Amino acid sequence: MKVIMDLCIVPMGVGVSVSKYVAECQKVLQEAGLDHQLHAYGTNIEGDWDEVFAAVKQCHARVHAMGAPRITTSIKVGTRTDRNQTMQDKIDSVQTP
Amino acid sequence: MKVIMDLCIVPMGVGVSVSKYVAECQKVLQEAGLDHQLHAYGTNIEGDWDEVFAAVKQCHARVHAMGAPRITTSIKVGTRTDRNQTMQDKIDSVQTP
Amino acid sequence: MKVIMDLCIVPMGVGVSVSKYVAECQKVLQEAGLDHQLHAYGTNIEGDWDEVFAAVKQCHARVHAMGAPRITTSIKVGTRTDRNQTMQDKIDSVQTP
Amino acid sequence: MKVIMDLCIVPMGVGVSVSKYVAECQKVLQEAGLDHQLHAYGTNIEGDWDEVFAAVKQCHARVHAMGAPRITTSIKVGTRTDRNQTMQDKIDSVQTP
Repeated sequence: MKVIMDLCIVPMGVGVSVSKYVAECQKVLQEAGLDHQLHAYGTNIEGDWDEVFAAVKQCHARVHAMGAPRITTSIKVGTRTDRNQTMQDKIDSVQTP
Repeated sequence: MKVIMDLCIVPMGVGVSVSKYVAECQKVLQEAGLDHQLHAYGTNIEGDWDEVFAAVKQCHARVHAMGAPRITTSIKVGTRTDRNQTMQDKIDSVQTP
Repeated sequence: MKVIMDLCIVPMGVGVSVSKYVAECQKVLQEAGLDHQLHAYGTNIEGDWDEVFAAVKQCHARVHAMGAPRITTSIKVGTRTDRNQTMQDKIDSVQTP
Repeated sequence: MKVIMDLCIVPMGVGVSVSKYVAECQKVLQEAGLDHQLHAYGTNIEGDWDEVFAAVKQCHARVHAMGAPRITTSIKVGTRTDRNQTMQDKIDSVQTP
């Protein structure tokens, strides 16, 4: 099952700046070979359900290993059976209606 | 890794009423033996990371099998390494500060 | 316009425990006279669009005033024009299909 | 109070394709003169709290007026008192750690 995800990981108990934790999660996604695109409030990811969610779990593991005692993550995940659709297709469908 | 999750599954392309799909997801959670609590805008779930996310995947599979061509799901998921905490603990900590 | 909302406010830069901030937001909702129900990963709220969103803004103001330098909040908000529906209606529609 | 928001509006009861509704919301944001950036699972918006939330309300009104009987919207909204930060600052802080 193919998914398009939006992922926003929030480490808690590590102070007000969390960019180094988000940067580490970008590395996890790169290492996993997943198409992804950072934006100002999360990261879009595209891939197979199991691979994408394994990467999310790996992000939690890494961020905890970096010293964050608590993480709260927001995820939006979309699946569809009627057609194949990429992240770029979604953007194009809005911009060229 | 233990998680507390909030799950909100939205089937698309099936009309305005989606309660039968949400009810089916409640069955998935029951069959998985996961502690869960329905509220007015989602369901709280507590359990092991892999078991909880396997249930979410199963919800998508079932809702698609019921005829929904598209699903968009919102998830909040929390993990912590500093202490063990249940769903009820979270509620109690707010109500008896 | 009537809304049903799910609100989850996460103060950042204040350490790992955030329950006192969440408790303060419960007070804001009570003072606003809004129907609301705490759950393990947020609070359901029901009311007029403007009143509910004014309360959310007030929650941010209070949590900043308590000393939190940064807040990230997740909101789900539903509106419908086909029928009037309460938080309890939504739960009932799932539990008695 | 300045906010950075991520907004994802999901019209329900209008079939599987929702791009024309999302395109209409882009117009609302343009008309409001708000900085915004579409991505594959929502739109980042930056501006004053009241102006940004007024635009969100206007999006719901327009999408209902286009015929959608039900809307469920996911919002992430961040505020901070320690520093001024733009959407681009957030991206830069992750990409150049």
